[in-house]
Formats: sequence, C-alpha cells, structure tokens
Amino acid sequence: MMPVNFDDVAAAARRVAPHVHRTPVLRSRRLNEILGVDLALKCENLQRIGAFKARGAHNAVLSLDDDQAARGVVTHSSGNHAAALSLAAATRGIRADIVMPENAPRAKVESVRRLGGHVIMCEPTIAAREAAAEAIVAATGATLVHPYDDPRVIAGQATAAVELIEDCPDLDAITAPVGGGGLMAGTAIAARHMRPSIRIVATEPEQADDAWRSWSTGVWTAGDPPNTVADGLRTTVGHNGLPILQALLDDFVTVSEAGIVAAMRLVWETTKLVIEPSSAVPVAALMERKGGMQGLRVGLILTGGNVDLDQLPWQ
Amino acid sequence: MMPVNFDDVAAAARRVAPHVHRTPVLRSRRLNEILGVDLALKCENLQRIGAFKARGAHNAVLSLDDDQAARGVVTHSSGNHAAALSLAAATRGIRADIVMPENAPRAKVESVRRLGGHVIMCEPTIAAREAAAEAIVAATGATLVHPYDDPRVIAGQATAAVELIEDCPDLDAITAPVGGGGLMAGTAIAARHMRPSIRIVATEPEQADDAWRSWSTGVWTAGDPPNTVADGLRTTVGHNGLPILQALLDDFVTVSEAGIVAAMRLVWETTKLVIEPSSAVPVAALMERKGGMQGLRVGLILTGGNVDLDQLPWQ
Repeated sequence: MMPVNFDDVAAAARRVAPHVHRTPVLRSRRLNEILGVDLALKCENLQRIGAFKARGAHNAVLSLDDDQAARGVVTHSSGNHAAALSLAAATRGIRADIVMPENAPRAKVESVRRLGGHVIMCEPTIAAREAAAEAIVAATGATLVHPYDDPRVIAGQATAAVELIEDCPDLDAITAPVGGGGLMAGTAIAARHMRPSIRIVATEPEQADDAWRSWSTGVWTAGDPPNTVADGLRTTVGHNGLPILQALLDDFVTVSEAGIVAAMRLVWETTKLVIEPSSAVPVAALMERKGGMQGLRVGLILTGGNVDLDQLPWQ
Repeated sequence: MMPVNFDDVAAAARRVAPHVHRTPVLRSRRLNEILGVDLALKCENLQRIGAFKARGAHNAVLSLDDDQAARGVVTHSSGNHAAALSLAAATRGIRADIVMPENAPRAKVESVRRLGGHVIMCEPTIAAREAAAEAIVAATGATLVHPYDDPRVIAGQATAAVELIEDCPDLDAITAPVGGGGLMAGTAIAARHMRPSIRIVATEPEQADDAWRSWSTGVWTAGDPPNTVADGLRTTVGHNGLPILQALLDDFVTVSEAGIVAAMRLVWETTKLVIEPSSAVPVAALMERKGGMQGLRVGLILTGGNVDLDQLPWQ
C-alpha cells in the first residue's frame, strides 16, 4: 500500500487550485532543436514564492481540521518550503513557526518574515533543527509539516504534473529532479494514473545521488554528503517517497555539475526564464542524451527560480 | 495625416498572427506591491528571436508584393532587428542581406546566420552601414526595411499592444520604452484607438533622451551621443515615429541609469523573467513614481530578453 494514491492527488488539486497559480506551459523551438525533443516546460519558477513548494505547503495546511489548524504549523527549512509554509499559513490565517539555521541567507529569512512566518534561529545542524521543531510541537501542539516526506506534501506537489498533463495530454515522457523526492514521487503518481503508458524519468546530480543509490539498490541510504550547485537538492530522499519511486519510475539518471551549469545557462538564454540550478538537472539529462527521451514529447517541471543574482554559477 | 493608422495596425495583426507568438501577459503580486500599480506585463521577451522586433519585420516582409519579395530585403542593424528580418525572410523563403558592423558581437552575427540571413560586414559607422545597404539596394533591387522608421514596421510593432489590450481590456494606462520610436508609436496608435481614455506614457533613458527632447520642444533633434546601459535604445527617434508620439502621448518621462539597472534586477527577482535593460526603462519610471501611473491598471511591454549573461549590469 503506497503512502499516497491518485485520490489524494485529485483532492489536493481541488484544495490548492484557488490559492496557487496554474502556471503556464512554455515551449522553445531553439531549445527543442538543441535537445532533440519536443519539450513542454511547466513553469513552476513562475509559481507563488517562486517554486512548486507552494503546492505541497498549501495542501498540507488546508488539509488540517479546524482544531489542528488553530494550533498552527511548524517546519525546519532554509529553502523554498519555509516561504511556502509561511504563505500557506497566512492564507488560512494561522501561525507558522519556521526553524532556520543561524547561517541562513539574510534574504531567505526576510522573505519568510515578509510572508508572516515566525522565525526561530538554531545551530546549523540537522539535529539542532529537528530538536527545535520538536520542542515547538511539544509546547504548542502545532503540526509539523515536513518539507518533502509528508504524504500531504507529496500529494500537493503532484498537482503540477496534473496540470501539465491536462494541458499537454499527448506527452510521451515526463521528468523532474529529485531532492527529497516529494515532487518526483507526486509527479510519478499523477503521471502513471493519468497516462499509464508515459515514460517517467527521475534525475539527480551525481554529487547528490543518494536517491539514485537507494533506488538502484533497493536499500535506503543517505549517501555521501551532497556537494552540488543544485542547492534545492541537497536533501536525502524520504522514506515515504522512495517506495513510490521504486514502484513507478521507468528510469533514473544522474548528471554532472558542469552539465547542470550548462543546462541552466542554456535555459536562461533560449527561454528567457530565470531558473534555479535544481531546475536545470532534468535539462542536463536531455543535453547528455540520458533517460531514453530522444525524439519524444517530454514534459519537464521547472521547479523554481529563486537564485542569488550576485552569485551565478557560470561566473 | 499620420504615416500609420489603425487600419494598418489591424491589417498587420492579421498578417503576422500565424508567424509570431501571441506572448503571455504575466503578473506579479510582489512587483505590484513594490511599484504601487496593478501591472500587466506583455512578455515580448518570450517572442520569437527574444524580442518584439519579430512583429515589425514579419509585417514588412509579408506586405511586399511577389515581385518585390523576389528581389529580397536588406537592413543595417547589429541588434534584434537583424535577427527578426532574417527570420521573417526565411518565413517567406526570400533572401535577407544584413549589413553589420565589423565589431558586432560574435553571438549576434551567428544568430543572424543561423536564421538564414546573409551577413555583410562594414566599418562600424552609421555612414558606412547606410552606404553598404544602399549599394545592395542599387545592385539587387532589394527592399530596405529600416529597423524602426518604416511605416510597415511601426504597424507591426503595434500588434503587441493590440494583443495586450485584447487580453486586458480594462487597462488605465500603457507604457513602453522609446529607442527609435517604432514600438512606442505603434503602441500609441493601437491604444488610443482601442481604448480612447487610456493614459499613454513613453519612457526613455536620461542618457539617450533625444526623443524626449524632440517631443518636448517639437523640433526633431539627434541629441547628445547616447550613453546608456539600455543598448536597444541607443538609436535616434525616427521622422515617422515622432509626429505620432507628439499627437498621441499623455506623458513622456526619462529615467536614470541606476534606476534602469535596479528595475532590471527587480524584474528578474520578482517575475523570474530574463529581460534586457531596455525593457526595464518603463519599470524604472514606475519605481521612480514618474508618469502619473500610481494606483492604475498599467500595461507594460517587456520588449526583449537578449542579454549577455557574462556581463550583467549589476556586476
């Protein structure tokens, strides 16, 4: 029995629709020529808070009953999920406590505060983050919304693929990056249900290949410490997401750091879209002709566009 | 009698529709908060060849009769019009000769060649460019398509505003940048006809303010040599465009170089769209609260997204 099924996804789609953008699907002839595919780009970089994470956070917050909601939500994140949960809590008018490491970029902290999130600083270790979040849960009864392994979050992230396949019903393949695996697991559930014959391809940086190792061996592993430019993917695959990937993927490929940077730049130049390095990972797979997608109609989720413009990776 | 009227624009809209993108209109809550307006962004950076210039070039080429077309087209440009005319000529299956200065960026030259344009190099002076183009016209009978002062080009550029107002019929104001004035003149013709009460605001860099001076004094002037980061606006306003601006504008404002760079960065960060500096000029006017557009529903044409990613102006 899978932790998330398509009924959960369909319910999530109804729940989040009034609160998140139905992002456009864009195409580029030039990019298609270079990559040798017919590419439909699902632009979650144009989503609220600049990333698909708005979907999962809204589904989690809007799934709470009134008593749960009244006690608020909490998470630990220094990335897009922190902003997403703050926004979703504001949508429902409830409190969000966001545990962030002391060394989090100032812009990320300010973004959470601007959206109404309550920031709690902690030491920059996973243990310290988790301890701080658990202490808040114990004290307030708030609901912990994990950034990627919460089934409500997985179902919410799946709604990007639902919209993409509704808008492009003839896709031959669909691909996305894997960090914690929430987006990829949700994408696989939606795609396999809506278009059973579709080829589902996961992509990950070689330098953060814990999910690929876990998927390949069938044994969950944290892998080596991640060391990738794709800052959104420096997480370890979740225990709920992994079995979904094992059940539903057709292929899982990894790409080089140089490939990620080249793909990011290629997308900026050909599509005029600002994407973050994580979004470039499946594009790098297409550039490197990996994943068996050549010549196909490929749906690709551009996951986000939150980039430090003073530190672009090709500089 | 104006050199272009709305009938010309309506004909251009029918002519170019099968060949150019109907670009999306995007919105950003965060950008609206910062600028204090309700902004509809017409994304010509997502247009073919990455700029609105595809519109005017297609209208000019598709307006030729078969005899004229058979003799080809010619222009002098090192910018987006060079690529646009090459593409439009390829659409019709005719020859395009593009006179470019010897010091044109290699990427621009390669882009023209990739689109099928025939590149003729000349010395990097206006006189040399014009002489080379005239020599080709004399030798081959090709039609010169001026980058911005050709009435067919003005009518073609107007089609961006036509689509914007069709998609957002309740706009209170519309704004765009002025280089040679082709886009702004076309925008003004379309907007005044389709929505007579609309406020029409032209914007230009202080450091390339020839059009503003000509408009303010009523006397055409080339102004001082332009010295602006907005490379697409380093041209002198055309003799066909100027009287249209004089007849139809409600206001014309200029903005600082620092304002242009800040506005460009703001758009990248809030909308995740790559725009070139020229596109940021009307955004800078809104940041600086110029043009009397506060609190209004404003349509703004993002003119293009062709940027050298190795030389961003905030670095």
